[in-house]
Amino acid sequence: MAELVRFGVSIPDDLLEKFDVLIGEKGYTNRSEAIRDLIRDRLVEDEWGDAEHDVVGTVTVVYNHEQSDLAQKLTEIQHRQHDLIVSAVHVHLDQHNCLEVLIMRGKAADVRKAGQLLTSTRGVKHGKMTYTTTGKELD
Amino acid sequence: MAELVRFGVSIPDDLLEKFDVLIGEKGYTNRSEAIRDLIRDRLVEDEWGDAEHDVVGTVTVVYNHEQSDLAQKLTEIQHRQHDLIVSAVHVHLDQHNCLEVLIMRGKAADVRKAGQLLTSTRGVKHGKMTYTTTGKELD
Amino acid sequence: MAELVRFGVSIPDDLLEKFDVLIGEKGYTNRSEAIRDLIRDRLVEDEWGDAEHDVVGTVTVVYNHEQSDLAQKLTEIQHRQHDLIVSAVHVHLDQHNCLEVLIMRGKAADVRKAGQLLTSTRGVKHGKMTYTTTGKELD
Amino acid sequence: MAELVRFGVSIPDDLLEKFDVLIGEKGYTNRSEAIRDLIRDRLVEDEWGDAEHDVVGTVTVVYNHEQSDLAQKLTEIQHRQHDLIVSAVHVHLDQHNCLEVLIMRGKAADVRKAGQLLTSTRGVKHGKMTYTTTGKELD
Repeated sequence: MAELVRFGVSIPDDLLEKFDVLIGEKGYTNRSEAIRDLIRDRLVEDEWGDAEHDVVGTVTVVYNHEQSDLAQKLTEIQHRQHDLIVSAVHVHLDQHNCLEVLIMRGKAADVRKAGQLLTSTRGVKHGKMTYTTTGKELD
Repeated sequence: MAELVRFGVSIPDDLLEKFDVLIGEKGYTNRSEAIRDLIRDRLVEDEWGDAEHDVVGTVTVVYNHEQSDLAQKLTEIQHRQHDLIVSAVHVHLDQHNCLEVLIMRGKAADVRKAGQLLTSTRGVKHGKMTYTTTGKELD
Repeated sequence: MAELVRFGVSIPDDLLEKFDVLIGEKGYTNRSEAIRDLIRDRLVEDEWGDAEHDVVGTVTVVYNHEQSDLAQKLTEIQHRQHDLIVSAVHVHLDQHNCLEVLIMRGKAADVRKAGQLLTSTRGVKHGKMTYTTTGKELD
Repeated sequence: MAELVRFGVSIPDDLLEKFDVLIGEKGYTNRSEAIRDLIRDRLVEDEWGDAEHDVVGTVTVVYNHEQSDLAQKLTEIQHRQHDLIVSAVHVHLDQHNCLEVLIMRGKAADVRKAGQLLTSTRGVKHGKMTYTTTGKELD
């Protein structure tokens, strides 16, 4: 486990005041936590820039389950990518619409590619990828 | 169910050629599908711009489950927001790191706010929101 | 002029190490400056979320100057928006292509609207807005 | 000059109706133009993904000109990058604050790097890059 260290940030007082208001609104109770989040967010961005990096991502697809063979197509893609797909959760949004969230893990380039395949499947109303992390390198 | 209509797009041939290459790489088999996705993506962006709009979003948090009381704090927030949280899925990334994906639904402003609260919780290593849709208005 | 103050950030050592590498790559010579930039970036984002806020933005349009009446149309829009447009710079990219950068200042909602009008003008090959600040509230 | 061709897009009527409302709000007079813009935007994104690609970008920096030697430092960086910097425009925002917009052209990786150097210069209050295009490959 990493050790906590401390460093000082010098900053104009007005700027700090505005930052305190902003992070208060976002629910932070603590400046260090807000700063760490800004830092970690940039680092995760960086992890995804390296094609070989082990990353975690989610794919969110909304679709109409009555659409002929879409559910089946999505399932097939998932099976072909089973080494990347860790888990999936399915939500019935209403009588027609479904949401499926797939959690993927693997090399950045592979996860990105599989995500594109899933979100670009014909009949998917809206597909989105989220880029996150294994957490391993972020203490 | 919506009816399919057709409209024509006039476009320079070179531009179309480049578009065809791009969508091929992304896994589209069909121009109409790629165009519909570009359109739907803009519409979902627009739904989130309206604070009162019924939307769906996911929140993805990565954290170390050994972190004192973090899991409990996240659970408490989720309970206070239980009317917004439709479902949650939990993945053990390794011995230390967990991924939790929460699926939320409600007014855009409320979902956004709850998401900020969750991602800004002290100890969360990386938190991300995904903005998607109920699919109701996207045929 | 604002006074410089100092606050401490506690952070795991591994995380700080990775941050130092990252900011070194981006050309920062100093952690405080990198942190201040992360903070100011969020604050500027926030300024643009307030429709009435006095902001600065740029609009960048690339177009073919041989396109019938496009240059004239862009000029007309600019004149109608002259209270928002501070300055414009024009670059001849090659025999056919021009780049025009317009610097705008006004209420966030007005600047955004004028920017959309300019980038959506028929014949503009690529239009982009940049969201920046008057600097007044960022010391 | 490229030839105009036409292709058909099949789309649910409801979706098309919503798209028409959206593009009307953004000031488009014409569906084809809106679609071409969506397409070109993706292609420009793609150009920037290729480190060797000839691109155009702008860098926008806001700073206080009274800040000791900042203006001079920015000028020095610009001179070192003179082969990339096509043009610069300077605006006096108020008694203290300046906006400088630099128009750059070169290989994507070089332009990106120079932009980072400029926006990360100590004393710059807010720096932003805009990613656009030479227009050459976008008819």
